[in-house]
Amino acid sequence: MSAVASLKAPFFDSVLIANRGEIALRIQRACRQLGLRSIMVCSEADRDAPYRETADEFVCIGPSPAAQSYLNRDAVLAAAVTTGAGAIHPGYGFLSENAAFADAVEALGLTFIGPRASEIRMMGDKIAAKQAMMAAGVPCVPGPDTALSEDLAEVANVAETIGYPVIVKAAGGGGGRGMRVVSSAHELAGAVIVTREEARRAFGKPELYIEKFLQHPRHVEIQVLCDNYGQGIWLGARDCSMQRRHQKVIEEAPAPSIPADVVARIGDRCVAACKQIGYRGVGTFEFLYEDNEFYFIEMNTRLQVEHPVTEMTSGIDIVREQLRVAQGYQLELSQADVGCFGHSLECRINAEDPFTFAASPGLISAISLPGGPGVRVDTHVGPGYKVPPQYDSMIAKLIVHAPTRDQAITRMRVALSEMRVEGIATNIALHRAIFEDPSFCRGGTDIHHLEKWLAERRAAS
Amino acid sequence: MSAVASLKAPFFDSVLIANRGEIALRIQRACRQLGLRSIMVCSEADRDAPYRETADEFVCIGPSPAAQSYLNRDAVLAAAVTTGAGAIHPGYGFLSENAAFADAVEALGLTFIGPRASEIRMMGDKIAAKQAMMAAGVPCVPGPDTALSEDLAEVANVAETIGYPVIVKAAGGGGGRGMRVVSSAHELAGAVIVTREEARRAFGKPELYIEKFLQHPRHVEIQVLCDNYGQGIWLGARDCSMQRRHQKVIEEAPAPSIPADVVARIGDRCVAACKQIGYRGVGTFEFLYEDNEFYFIEMNTRLQVEHPVTEMTSGIDIVREQLRVAQGYQLELSQADVGCFGHSLECRINAEDPFTFAASPGLISAISLPGGPGVRVDTHVGPGYKVPPQYDSMIAKLIVHAPTRDQAITRMRVALSEMRVEGIATNIALHRAIFEDPSFCRGGTDIHHLEKWLAERRAAS
Repeated sequence: MSAVASLKAPFFDSVLIANRGEIALRIQRACRQLGLRSIMVCSEADRDAPYRETADEFVCIGPSPAAQSYLNRDAVLAAAVTTGAGAIHPGYGFLSENAAFADAVEALGLTFIGPRASEIRMMGDKIAAKQAMMAAGVPCVPGPDTALSEDLAEVANVAETIGYPVIVKAAGGGGGRGMRVVSSAHELAGAVIVTREEARRAFGKPELYIEKFLQHPRHVEIQVLCDNYGQGIWLGARDCSMQRRHQKVIEEAPAPSIPADVVARIGDRCVAACKQIGYRGVGTFEFLYEDNEFYFIEMNTRLQVEHPVTEMTSGIDIVREQLRVAQGYQLELSQADVGCFGHSLECRINAEDPFTFAASPGLISAISLPGGPGVRVDTHVGPGYKVPPQYDSMIAKLIVHAPTRDQAITRMRVALSEMRVEGIATNIALHRAIFEDPSFCRGGTDIHHLEKWLAERRAAS
Repeated sequence: MSAVASLKAPFFDSVLIANRGEIALRIQRACRQLGLRSIMVCSEADRDAPYRETADEFVCIGPSPAAQSYLNRDAVLAAAVTTGAGAIHPGYGFLSENAAFADAVEALGLTFIGPRASEIRMMGDKIAAKQAMMAAGVPCVPGPDTALSEDLAEVANVAETIGYPVIVKAAGGGGGRGMRVVSSAHELAGAVIVTREEARRAFGKPELYIEKFLQHPRHVEIQVLCDNYGQGIWLGARDCSMQRRHQKVIEEAPAPSIPADVVARIGDRCVAACKQIGYRGVGTFEFLYEDNEFYFIEMNTRLQVEHPVTEMTSGIDIVREQLRVAQGYQLELSQADVGCFGHSLECRINAEDPFTFAASPGLISAISLPGGPGVRVDTHVGPGYKVPPQYDSMIAKLIVHAPTRDQAITRMRVALSEMRVEGIATNIALHRAIFEDPSFCRGGTDIHHLEKWLAERRAAS
């Protein structure tokens, strides 16, 4: 008897969405399409969020600062209890990778829509994550899978063995935080001491590790989806190399010019690793990709901002499937059902100055969104929406899909030209300029390209 | 050497879009994505159309009544000449099936984006069309492929042979106009005389023909796409049975519960017919479908309102391909490249009362459109747009796509619930109600279902 057949009832029929903005609406849509009651929470700054209209319930959980609302574990849990929520979807950011929160949700007898706390914890500790990946045969960046010794002479030996340049990273870091590149032996001791002290302060965890510093890698990641019964699939690769200060600006799927069989090989490895550690739900294996090789850097144990480009190329609604497996259903898709059709690109549209990147909250007096074939906009904003100053500046994701990357690029250009936001500054002009950059348009630029391009642009202006 | 290789240059690099509303914007987008200069024309009522912003040129060609602008052949041609347009895209409606217009365009040395005038003429004469289809082996509704005799006794013999009920149709009609059902012999003579007189007045052409009247057919149509070099493909079937007064209200692809091999057989027949008559460009073979059989009723020699549902299921941008073949390129797609993925539904959103169907032009004070995965909106309107009273009341097409029909239905329900138009009445409430109708949701309702459902709803209210 299969697990589905033995499932008497789904684990829940209502979901508290512990997030805000476009992802809150994205999750609400998936809930409503599955007939799940959607319970939305908000801070005082988001009382008039447009998705309030279509929420089954809408509860204010605290003042505008995230620490007092979206990051306030007890406020979220209390809202879940009082509204009778059966599950909590954390979205991304906020409490989504907080293992203690996941534990607390399950201690209340509710479903945490994400992996178990133990896997969140493991992936939150970059050394433990690396150990797990090496054990599962996932290729990692050269360097030991143990914490750096306190003995600086020993550290120097390790660095020498790896070969300079190396990178010193905090075990509690990730997402580009808590790391320092070291190009030669005489810089090492200072870098270790400073990074360790920063790690202690920022993450409450002084452990460091050391790796080979790859000089021109691309950021390529693999989306996985696993059920509670040991089944898992990967949904293709995304290239998110277009970054500024470790923040992704443009994402795409598939990753340009990486052969399908190479992607399949690493995808299979990721799924095997998920099975080995008992991973459940959605997740992303992030890699650096250089000279045709993948090097694991970290795993994100949650839905990601850029999931739509994979939805567009696979035809699979990732949030729907995430909710279904969380409800206790077996994965309905096998690896053979997952194709990759055409090419998809996503621009993160931020309320910020396109040149200085200064945040630009305020009232959107008018907005006009692009549409038509192969154009998708994920946004919670409309005319009259006031972008609050307290949160991330992303106001929309503009996503396109077309049979080829070149066609997707022209489609994005036209879509960007149609998009108008008035009353606040946005980075639409920046995206328009990037989509005229020949290097980006050729595809396969490395993670430093956007910063270099921005510097050249500044110098030329 | 292939025709593409021998093509020195595309036939044109600019397109005059001889239409308005959502389809004008749809064509503009395709032109811009192909790098074609888009020249838009407007009537005085459409001077402030939002697509003006993104048009390369925007020319007013006459007063608001369509007869003096969009239907004014010379005004359109003069605009094409003065702007240096290389081609004219007629969209749908207006001059799109006017053979004399197509002739005049080509006489000016411009490309008419559509079939040759001779094929438009043939398909405009329903008797000639039927003759061509019978010759090409396309199954037609039982009945002779010749005009009815003036001799009523002879007509009675023909009707007797077919068997009652029969339908008397004007050769110059089509699209539900100029026809009369006859249930028994004693009604026949009167019906013939009245219909002939109506045909003479409405179409300037008294010829009639007679067919078996199918009682519970569905409307199922096949999209075709042909190049100038004798190559053609079909892109799947659409079901457009949800009609009110012969106007399509909801369309979908594929046609529910018609086996793929049955669709493929009729699709192949349509393409064979295109090759036989030398058809070029896009076109639609409209059929009645009853008891697992297809019966040709007419061919539309233009792009159709409902083309997006086929785009969603095939992944092919039909307007792009239409422009490419008109430019003189060979069809890049073969039949083997055309798949059918998931299910797509389209709701025509009209500015009309959802109960009385009275047109409701006027100012859109606020509008909020749905979005997210698998949701597409084709519209030219936004907040502050004034729906002019002179034209068709359609203001938007809401299109969804999902892996299954059931998922597409829930996606449409959620999308409809998110859609708000203020300031004018729209039929959104009607669509919401239809998407709760169990018969429609089961799929495969006939062309009378919507009218019956509306009558029951009126009776119950």
